[in-house]
Amino acid sequence: MNKQIIFKKRPIGFPDESTWSLETTSIPEPKEGEVLIQHHYISLDPAMRGWMNDNKSYIAPVGIGDVMRAGSIGKVIKSNNHPSYKVGDCLTGWGGVQQYVTTDGKGWHKVDDTIAPMPLFISTLGMPGMTAYFGILEVGKLKEGDIVLVSGAAGAVGSVVGQIAKIKGCRVVGIAGGKEKCDYLVNELGFDAAIDYKSEEIYSALKKNCPEGVDVYFDNVGGEILDAALSKLRMHARIVICGAISQYNNKVRIKGPSNYLNLLVKRASMQGMVVMDYAKDYGKAAMEMGGWIVEGKLKSREAIFDGIENFYDTFGRLFSGEKKGKLILKVIEE
Amino acid sequence: MNKQIIFKKRPIGFPDESTWSLETTSIPEPKEGEVLIQHHYISLDPAMRGWMNDNKSYIAPVGIGDVMRAGSIGKVIKSNNHPSYKVGDCLTGWGGVQQYVTTDGKGWHKVDDTIAPMPLFISTLGMPGMTAYFGILEVGKLKEGDIVLVSGAAGAVGSVVGQIAKIKGCRVVGIAGGKEKCDYLVNELGFDAAIDYKSEEIYSALKKNCPEGVDVYFDNVGGEILDAALSKLRMHARIVICGAISQYNNKVRIKGPSNYLNLLVKRASMQGMVVMDYAKDYGKAAMEMGGWIVEGKLKSREAIFDGIENFYDTFGRLFSGEKKGKLILKVIEE
Repeated sequence: MNKQIIFKKRPIGFPDESTWSLETTSIPEPKEGEVLIQHHYISLDPAMRGWMNDNKSYIAPVGIGDVMRAGSIGKVIKSNNHPSYKVGDCLTGWGGVQQYVTTDGKGWHKVDDTIAPMPLFISTLGMPGMTAYFGILEVGKLKEGDIVLVSGAAGAVGSVVGQIAKIKGCRVVGIAGGKEKCDYLVNELGFDAAIDYKSEEIYSALKKNCPEGVDVYFDNVGGEILDAALSKLRMHARIVICGAISQYNNKVRIKGPSNYLNLLVKRASMQGMVVMDYAKDYGKAAMEMGGWIVEGKLKSREAIFDGIENFYDTFGRLFSGEKKGKLILKVIEE
Repeated sequence: MNKQIIFKKRPIGFPDESTWSLETTSIPEPKEGEVLIQHHYISLDPAMRGWMNDNKSYIAPVGIGDVMRAGSIGKVIKSNNHPSYKVGDCLTGWGGVQQYVTTDGKGWHKVDDTIAPMPLFISTLGMPGMTAYFGILEVGKLKEGDIVLVSGAAGAVGSVVGQIAKIKGCRVVGIAGGKEKCDYLVNELGFDAAIDYKSEEIYSALKKNCPEGVDVYFDNVGGEILDAALSKLRMHARIVICGAISQYNNKVRIKGPSNYLNLLVKRASMQGMVVMDYAKDYGKAAMEMGGWIVEGKLKSREAIFDGIENFYDTFGRLFSGEKKGKLILKVIEE
């Protein structure tokens, strides 16, 4: 049977248990030219919260009654004359939160799971890694010697942003929640400094850790931290707007950045990005990042939880911060 | 004697009469290598409000007890061996709100007041015109066919922004306060449409007038109008942050743009500018804009009020909207 997480009700604020239901259906049969994929892992990402709102955005909202949208990775277990994919191929795409999915292959791509474990392909070599790579290099226009600040720094995107900036010869300061995460950034990922926003006052912590200001701020969180970062910009600074996790579960209107006029004072820019725009260059990026991983310059950490039944609790960890690294749900039953 | 407006007290919110005092001193003598300039006109600009705050900004705040900072234009009436300037030369620079000033010439430049009336050199051929020119062309990266939205559209900067965009083959919508200003934009300056923010609900007015969205938004006002514009961005739109007149007299924290996450949805950017950065290219810009004026493609309107004694009331018109075109104070007594 195929266990699925079905989207039942648009949440206001943080999703509660009535938002989704776990349902069981029969395993679908691939039509002519399709394959059947058995999912091993599902990617859980903050962006999923945005897809639940009935807003115009960069992608249509998830429909009520649909399988919850998510990135995924798994193996072909049946092919009905698919022209390219055969049984045993490892594919990653947008399979949703379910154990099995059929597809004609559009939007999916094959990866070689003999060279790296599957979770890596939905983590640093997948969307979060691509987001970090194109966000900091293309949108952030990173230059050697830049002072780089990144929020959500221990997360799937932020940790890669900071490490790429170190590889490129920058000073890197990360913002994360809790001493353990901050220690991880400095001691294991080689960040120059880390700010614990849970125990430190953000303005004075920035003053201490970025006394010369910031050339690039990579924002995953929005809210007060974005405002504080705006107050520390250097001339011609760039802010990359990648997300705003602090605001996704708001019941009231999003808090706009009060300090935005520092963009004027510092002739700075703030630019938004969506990773899908860079799809044609994913291969090149994966190659370069794969090289860094092999050389030990880029570390990837996944927080893997087990069982599709635990989707709701696991999803909550995206926002509570109770996880280390890229949040992944293992859905294959062994 | 030299009448001066002296900055006495940093205002909280809108300046009141205790902010400045009118004082009289003797006309200064130019030192060796200096000239004495008699001011004819003083430029009154919204940016002056920002210079009164004791904040870090792109320029030091005006000191208490100093002559109020302002752009100005006047004629050399005495030279003490100045190497370049002689009696009768018309100079524009940062002379402050006073009738006479001495200078070694640094930061001043000579204009030819036989080809255009003096006020034009502190209006469309001065700072506001330069701000419009470099803001829309360089920061806004204007392209033929763009849909351009400009706030403060009947003002010194906005009216030039819109006209340049028309010259470059764009569709232009202006936002201004009151029917008279809106009629002026459409009937005299050739804007495609105008929105009266005083009588129209801004979101529905934008929906009506920019049904396809906006490629470039040139923001002079901030606040709700910036938020509304953010909701109408097209893909890869550019927002030029030139000012935020709606927020300058706030007693509370500036209202940040709640809709800033549309920068992400639309892969758009928001960039600040300060006109001084383009000083080396002023000459080129003045030449091009002068050409447009001669051809009748670019119209300039000045609202000239008379008498340094009326500085306080005249300054208020910057924020009340009770003026048409570039606000100028005539300080020469005839």
